[in-house]
Amino acid sequence: MTEHAIRKVDNKRVTDFIGLNDHKLRQKRERPGEDMAGFFIGEGVTVIERAMQAGHALLILIINEQFDLSRFGNLPADVEILRCGREVLEAISGRPDLKDPIGSFRRPVETSLSSVIDNSKTLLLTESVQNPTNMGMIMRNAAAFGVDAVCVDSSSCDPLYRRAVRVSMGQVFAVPHVRVNTIPETLEILEEKKFQTVALTPDKAADELQIVLQRETGPIALIVGSEGSGLSQEILDAAQQHARIPMMDNVDSLNVATAVAVALYSVNNCRRSR
Amino acid sequence: MTEHAIRKVDNKRVTDFIGLNDHKLRQKRERPGEDMAGFFIGEGVTVIERAMQAGHALLILIINEQFDLSRFGNLPADVEILRCGREVLEAISGRPDLKDPIGSFRRPVETSLSSVIDNSKTLLLTESVQNPTNMGMIMRNAAAFGVDAVCVDSSSCDPLYRRAVRVSMGQVFAVPHVRVNTIPETLEILEEKKFQTVALTPDKAADELQIVLQRETGPIALIVGSEGSGLSQEILDAAQQHARIPMMDNVDSLNVATAVAVALYSVNNCRRSR
Repeated sequence: MTEHAIRKVDNKRVTDFIGLNDHKLRQKRERPGEDMAGFFIGEGVTVIERAMQAGHALLILIINEQFDLSRFGNLPADVEILRCGREVLEAISGRPDLKDPIGSFRRPVETSLSSVIDNSKTLLLTESVQNPTNMGMIMRNAAAFGVDAVCVDSSSCDPLYRRAVRVSMGQVFAVPHVRVNTIPETLEILEEKKFQTVALTPDKAADELQIVLQRETGPIALIVGSEGSGLSQEILDAAQQHARIPMMDNVDSLNVATAVAVALYSVNNCRRSR
Repeated sequence: MTEHAIRKVDNKRVTDFIGLNDHKLRQKRERPGEDMAGFFIGEGVTVIERAMQAGHALLILIINEQFDLSRFGNLPADVEILRCGREVLEAISGRPDLKDPIGSFRRPVETSLSSVIDNSKTLLLTESVQNPTNMGMIMRNAAAFGVDAVCVDSSSCDPLYRRAVRVSMGQVFAVPHVRVNTIPETLEILEEKKFQTVALTPDKAADELQIVLQRETGPIALIVGSEGSGLSQEILDAAQQHARIPMMDNVDSLNVATAVAVALYSVNNCRRSR
């Protein structure tokens, strides 16, 4: 464990962290092939602890000048501690008085769909869920209700993106996630493996969720769509079932992460009552 | 409908709106007895339309220089339109290029508990839910699942606070809310009216929500607690039943608004399956 005092913004040790709060730039830089592709960020003691417990390698820890390192149970022997002054913290996070530590972790090798399918009873698939807060909440809810893996399509937010990790309260590390090329292609693979594929939709013509779930006894893959427009017609066409959460006529829809929680609760509830 | 072009930040017509994005100050000024107590703010065309449809009086509408007023179906005859330059918009909202209109409405007379009790089947009570985003989501979920009224205690966020209104997508206007003095006092009143009072808790010793709900056939009052610490012991002691949403052992809790959605879904589901 080596510790460095960083007082100047142009110190090379913090170059990669400057402007961490520019969400779009950071997300771009963490995409495959870009310069930050090998890393992800976790913020706060709880999240960083959960990442380490899940086996992720903490490489660099950014802390303020007063931060008490004993708040962490154990830190890896080779972590580099950057104890930063107010000016540096502001350049990194937008906040000179940043309290929460920021950890930079080695990004794990991506989980493959084939490695999670065989032992799964419940999978969740997201189409174009781009908002990191929603993705974080989806991961938190997936963990709470014991989803076996979350499959995100290429237009969905990276579950390991900083804000998603934070909002998930570190629960993103409790559930494997898989990046899939397209949802229709994934549904075909899942159907071959005897999954029932269930698209969630606010469409009043769809059957009620509870009714759909009571018909199914095998593994289930739930599919949810983007915040704005819901699932695309292509995916609705590809799914075996459409299910809606019953709600009042004057309400358009639930937040996507909320709908996920309700649907997963219902899946578990149906299974327990058999 | 009178329209004024506002180019200068010191124009008296916008004095009350300057610094609208200072959340704490604004919340304080809207409390009973303070200078903004008679008003609430709604932002965006959808939210403003929903507020007007719910019968709320739009007094002032703040728009940018390009805003097309025909995006509103109908505007009241006596509304004052303030068409503001970039500098003024920035002083009001923090954003010189603000797109969404801001409406100032007359705050309605508070709904009383006695006026909602008699015809209610489902009430929701919040203890110390202080975060406006959570309050907004709670109101959205309460509307989606047809709650008859939401009772907020004195330490909970005002459901008509700007950010709560926005996050609720204007659904805060679809459900009456009542400010109650204390939850234990309210529970006594509700129990006299034959409500079953059910405290939601992550405590593993509590019965599963579904089990609790299957026992009850009458009106239900669900009680949820703050984001941090959950319900206080005083309220847990005062409630007739404790119910938990079953979740994985390694997850502490759900977000409070998410827990509300799951619980309300479950209440409705139990009722429909009778």
